[in-house]
Amino acid sequence: MKNYDVVVIGGSAAGIPAAITAKRHYPNKSVLLIRKERRVLIPCGIPYIFGTVGTPEKNLVPDKVLEKNGIELLIDPVVHIDNKNCIVETKAGKQVRYGKLVLATGSEPMIPPIPGIDKGNIFSIKKDVSYLNEIIHAMENASNMVIVGCGFIGVELAEECKRRNKNLNITIVEMMQHCLQLVYDKEFCLKAEETLINQGINLMVDEKVESFTGDDKVEGIKLKSGKEIKADMVILGIGAVSNVELAKKTGLEIGTTRSIMVNRYMQTSDPNIFACGDCTEKVSFFDGKPSTLKLASIATMEARIAGANLFASSRLSMGVIGVFSTTLGGSAFAAAGLTEGQAQKQGYNIVVGESEAINRHPGGMPGAENLKVKLIFEAGTQIILGGQVCGAKSGGELINAISAFVHQRMTANDIATFQLGTHPALTASPIAYQLVNAAEIAIKQLKMKRG
Amino acid sequence: MKNYDVVVIGGSAAGIPAAITAKRHYPNKSVLLIRKERRVLIPCGIPYIFGTVGTPEKNLVPDKVLEKNGIELLIDPVVHIDNKNCIVETKAGKQVRYGKLVLATGSEPMIPPIPGIDKGNIFSIKKDVSYLNEIIHAMENASNMVIVGCGFIGVELAEECKRRNKNLNITIVEMMQHCLQLVYDKEFCLKAEETLINQGINLMVDEKVESFTGDDKVEGIKLKSGKEIKADMVILGIGAVSNVELAKKTGLEIGTTRSIMVNRYMQTSDPNIFACGDCTEKVSFFDGKPSTLKLASIATMEARIAGANLFASSRLSMGVIGVFSTTLGGSAFAAAGLTEGQAQKQGYNIVVGESEAINRHPGGMPGAENLKVKLIFEAGTQIILGGQVCGAKSGGELINAISAFVHQRMTANDIATFQLGTHPALTASPIAYQLVNAAEIAIKQLKMKRG
Repeated sequence: MKNYDVVVIGGSAAGIPAAITAKRHYPNKSVLLIRKERRVLIPCGIPYIFGTVGTPEKNLVPDKVLEKNGIELLIDPVVHIDNKNCIVETKAGKQVRYGKLVLATGSEPMIPPIPGIDKGNIFSIKKDVSYLNEIIHAMENASNMVIVGCGFIGVELAEECKRRNKNLNITIVEMMQHCLQLVYDKEFCLKAEETLINQGINLMVDEKVESFTGDDKVEGIKLKSGKEIKADMVILGIGAVSNVELAKKTGLEIGTTRSIMVNRYMQTSDPNIFACGDCTEKVSFFDGKPSTLKLASIATMEARIAGANLFASSRLSMGVIGVFSTTLGGSAFAAAGLTEGQAQKQGYNIVVGESEAINRHPGGMPGAENLKVKLIFEAGTQIILGGQVCGAKSGGELINAISAFVHQRMTANDIATFQLGTHPALTASPIAYQLVNAAEIAIKQLKMKRG
Repeated sequence: MKNYDVVVIGGSAAGIPAAITAKRHYPNKSVLLIRKERRVLIPCGIPYIFGTVGTPEKNLVPDKVLEKNGIELLIDPVVHIDNKNCIVETKAGKQVRYGKLVLATGSEPMIPPIPGIDKGNIFSIKKDVSYLNEIIHAMENASNMVIVGCGFIGVELAEECKRRNKNLNITIVEMMQHCLQLVYDKEFCLKAEETLINQGINLMVDEKVESFTGDDKVEGIKLKSGKEIKADMVILGIGAVSNVELAKKTGLEIGTTRSIMVNRYMQTSDPNIFACGDCTEKVSFFDGKPSTLKLASIATMEARIAGANLFASSRLSMGVIGVFSTTLGGSAFAAAGLTEGQAQKQGYNIVVGESEAINRHPGGMPGAENLKVKLIFEAGTQIILGGQVCGAKSGGELINAISAFVHQRMTANDIATFQLGTHPALTASPIAYQLVNAAEIAIKQLKMKRG
């Protein structure tokens, strides 16, 4: 039986950086990555295979990233972990011994127990090349597509399917009041909805699916409101559930979000086993309570903590902030931390500042686009709780400055006097710069409130 | 005589935000802004009037920004400050009484005492609409332009003049070894030089001007090396000196960089007089020593401190970090804090991490461009000292995340576990994300050094 200092189970957004980080921090340790997929999809790129990118085969993580970092690869599903003897067994019967084990087993799409869910042409977004090709094939013969769920996957998928096939009639059904409501405040959700409607995508919000109709194949959807929609194909985009089967069988503690419980070191209830990514229980950066956020960027962050701590701890998880971005209708929509609504729900007394400006100066510079920033602060301490961005694509990096502000619990005064880099061809002017002005506006609001 | 709670002298990158901040923080106070220019140029936009933007008239700060904020405007040069009686007098003989005074008198281009400097067609970049139109007019009749100084003004000017007139033979003369050497490490300077050379711009580095030749008008330049260059027009871009004449006459303390001395509140030696922007003495964020940095973004930051502190202090200046960005050949070049060279010169024991990746994922997403990040850390504490960015234009906002890291003295471990927002159409993948990988590489270097 072969021995490895480190064995990582899972080869995607958590497994790869966990293995790389282990090698970077412990270059003399041997690292084996075991995964079940022959080819690994870039998870965030999946919606784009339906339009811009074209095929799943053009959205793969190259294996050379493992090779380059001195990581061995075994493609074979793990079926058993003997954590008393530190042995992992694969489906093909191969056994390896580990010093430290990292579980990065990911998640799977949530399949709701709705009558008719098993009919043909009802798909979810599985991270599987041939399954995704089946969806593309179905799309080519479809006239009416219904997407259930208007989160990130739903909106990106709708836009990309419309890009591939202009004649496809696409309807998104969402049970909440607005699309993307878990991530943005209402005014940003409305902007996102507008860009979808402008592309000819139908939105049905505040609607729940009652059942899927048809014989073998889906033909329509009945909603709880009584409405019916024609559908010759359905895609579910309503969230994901952690893959915890192996962990459960190994006797590891499972958390309240039905994910693998870890401490701040990303260590499970077995000190030799770490876990990271979508399979792992998370807590919020803000209130320390369990969080169901599942993001590739969180997975990589957790992997970098787990990988570094394997043999000597040097990193602690601070809990998840939640930093998101997407593009809709060519505009960036990004968010970090709590929305106004979430902050209020958590009992915070808040103050908000908004600032909008063109991302060039003077406005006649090429590429000039609007960029709006909203920042949310706790009113008493003026500590930032979150921010949202909408407009020019540079917003995709600007949100990372906001993420840094949130990480460091900076105050409105800190941000108002932040030393920014600006340039006519790259950003708003330093006078109009959105981040500092949003902070100033929040301070002004506070002063007005207090009289 | 009219009384104002606040009088601001100067109407550009420091004066405008100082006045706006005063109004935001003290909405019931009356604010008057006095400036000498009829029209105010956007300072950072000036190089672009020569090419992309076309004319100085398209690069003006609109006065409505003052009006909208309830700030009165007086256009008339201030000739005298009577700080015993708190009275300001203008050239036209108007007198106003102030409660608090803010000096935002800016800077002027440095004119070196080189023989022949007074000849015709030798220009500097004055913030004056008609003077800049004279330069454009001269350009239209010129064949050989020499730009003295290869800092930001020099490189941007060269590119923009070439854009306007492809046939203009442009040579930049720089006394240092490399262009932009005060802001970037050598490898970034070399990239910048390459983009200039590719545009047909001649670079002469490590060369000093000995004299300008010609009769009334400049005809050539003699260099200390003995070389001679033809020139029917010259533009100087070698730095700026603070406008301190008024401050000196008022008896305010002047600092070692020949700028107006202020404390951490941005208050001068007269407690009723504040100063901010290019006219003001600065200290480095890193070692607290005097700094000659002059940037519009620093001016706005100082103005926001001065304006907020006028009647009750709430903000302290932390010293200047220096956050820069520009574009050359369509690529962003940005920097924050100390370069490797500067850090070593200040006696820091450093470690460096670099990471390069495409700003999209998968690489087939439209708009994919390379983006390189270099981070410099103090070796013992792993605290970040600076960073440099080169490539895709989103680097113009990414540098602001680095600026936040520097502000907050984050460590390599903090940055390696930073919670980032990534998206296929906006950024590198979370696995390849440059900021966190540069931090990881730096940590790896440290481990290797220590064995």
